[in-house]
Amino acid sequence: MISPTSAAAIDQRFELGALPLVSGELLADAHLSYRVYGELNAACTNLVLYPSSYGAWPEDIDWVVGPILDPHRWCIVLVSQFGNGRSSSPSQGGPALQAGGWPVSHADNVRAQRRLLEEGFGVESPALIYGWSMGAQQAYHWGVLEPERSQRLCCICGTARTTPHNRLFLLSLRQALTADPAWNGTGFDTVPERGLRSFALIYASWAASQPFYRRGGHLDLGYADVESYVEQAWLPAYRRHDPRDLIAMLDVWLACDVAAAAGIVSGQAEADLATALGQIRARCAVVAGRHDLYFPPADCAAEAALIPQASLRVLESDLGHRAGNPRDSPVEQAQLRAVVEELCQS
Amino acid sequence: MISPTSAAAIDQRFELGALPLVSGELLADAHLSYRVYGELNAACTNLVLYPSSYGAWPEDIDWVVGPILDPHRWCIVLVSQFGNGRSSSPSQGGPALQAGGWPVSHADNVRAQRRLLEEGFGVESPALIYGWSMGAQQAYHWGVLEPERSQRLCCICGTARTTPHNRLFLLSLRQALTADPAWNGTGFDTVPERGLRSFALIYASWAASQPFYRRGGHLDLGYADVESYVEQAWLPAYRRHDPRDLIAMLDVWLACDVAAAAGIVSGQAEADLATALGQIRARCAVVAGRHDLYFPPADCAAEAALIPQASLRVLESDLGHRAGNPRDSPVEQAQLRAVVEELCQS
Repeated sequence: MISPTSAAAIDQRFELGALPLVSGELLADAHLSYRVYGELNAACTNLVLYPSSYGAWPEDIDWVVGPILDPHRWCIVLVSQFGNGRSSSPSQGGPALQAGGWPVSHADNVRAQRRLLEEGFGVESPALIYGWSMGAQQAYHWGVLEPERSQRLCCICGTARTTPHNRLFLLSLRQALTADPAWNGTGFDTVPERGLRSFALIYASWAASQPFYRRGGHLDLGYADVESYVEQAWLPAYRRHDPRDLIAMLDVWLACDVAAAAGIVSGQAEADLATALGQIRARCAVVAGRHDLYFPPADCAAEAALIPQASLRVLESDLGHRAGNPRDSPVEQAQLRAVVEELCQS
Repeated sequence: MISPTSAAAIDQRFELGALPLVSGELLADAHLSYRVYGELNAACTNLVLYPSSYGAWPEDIDWVVGPILDPHRWCIVLVSQFGNGRSSSPSQGGPALQAGGWPVSHADNVRAQRRLLEEGFGVESPALIYGWSMGAQQAYHWGVLEPERSQRLCCICGTARTTPHNRLFLLSLRQALTADPAWNGTGFDTVPERGLRSFALIYASWAASQPFYRRGGHLDLGYADVESYVEQAWLPAYRRHDPRDLIAMLDVWLACDVAAAAGIVSGQAEADLATALGQIRARCAVVAGRHDLYFPPADCAAEAALIPQASLRVLESDLGHRAGNPRDSPVEQAQLRAVVEELCQS
């Protein structure tokens, strides 16, 4: 049994060299950080690509190895998205933050991940791309930008294009950080303690759900009140990051749009969302959380309706957005496992 | 016809003198600001008390005179709550902000409003208390603290006790303001431009709804995108306030709890919520917005179930929390008018 977070599961580094970004810039010394669980079979048909979510490091999300993704069946490649502080990020060789937004997009993540699979594993087409939140965004981008190489997508609690409502949430997080006295226009002079506290409060209010707090979910976890829950459980998760990386990932999320990406990559005019999603050839499980406040089921359903081979599944859970990353909740884990099993039956 | 915001409808001032606050402090030179629409009948039986909501000045919310509350039938007394910058507020003679929270509560609002009605109008018992959001909170406090004087309550998009989830929203707003470089621990050295921008973004994301933004409600209103919508429609509504007043009202909201208020006022131990709400004698319309994100229908329904003579009504609307203050939306206005008419038939 391969144990997540064991000594064997350490970050590996894939050098991309000078990487041309979709924005037109050239990123010197680009690299991806990744981890591997399980073994690639001889036919190279069992690779699962698992791109990381917002603010996540591999050790935060590799609990899925076992409960959701069987490492005896799959070779799971957990890739850090650009900006997360492991792969190329403001804190890891750049690019730096820019006034118009960080110049990296999910199309760049897909291009780099494609090279990792081809050059590092000899795999052109992963059996499954599994992603939660910003990971789901990357899976959608794979489906649209690499339709012939995308066999199956499991897109959990995320959308292919950032909605106006979700945009407001992201803008409030971004503004919360840059409102801090430590912000100097391009970075931070010191740790933005005030801004990080606003950031954590906003995040905690959106990423759980009203029913979660109504039943006292934070009390069940051992916190005396919502204040200490945020202070002890949420704030440290963001405070450990270089705050520039937090902004970089927000910018990628803000710019998330498979239609725009399809237009830019093809060099043609921007496609509309229906056209872009209509290009997906993969079998696609669109998984929404019943009480996800920023990717509500209606938004996920609207996109699923535009994807030729998509089925919509709703996780029955009061964990809100985090129903899709149920590290400590077997009920939601069972639902996700069933989705993956069904998706991979054919 | 009495026209709202006409020259006749100007703020009047009711002097409360040295007001003992429930917190134990004495507020020197306390006063309430109020406006009157319509005329009190000879029997003094047609007074409607209309306490103000968060961040509202009378001219913002007196559109209800006519569309919802008929000034030919009712004598409508629109009272500014403490902290709104018209009645006693940090910007209007105090009290100042304090480390433990602004020392004024809804119990103080109720006490002061009771004196206004008695001494200013000779009315012991208003025919109706009508309130939206923080106005609904005040109506609930009337019902619990003055059960014999409260005949009818119309509580729109608000709760009698602030829920944990709503608390997080409020804490994020408060932290957003005090994260600004202008915050000095007790007030602001200059206008907190950065903090106000965070504040407006957070508010706009919570007070509307996902369906509102999904259908392009902000575009229908003439804004190019969510950024300009917040910048032009939301930010000015908060920027016009003394930011200390914004914090004062947040503190009242954070402390909103009829059970705690009943305990403090009676000098006994804190009642539980069921006991407190069970004391309400008024006929009570509990009105929730279908997509209200911070007072969701389930929270309102849970409280309605604890009130002896309450009926729950849900506004079918995608305006979110603002469905309860539909200044420019006749569909929601008609629903509210029907609720008030039914409530006042007996």
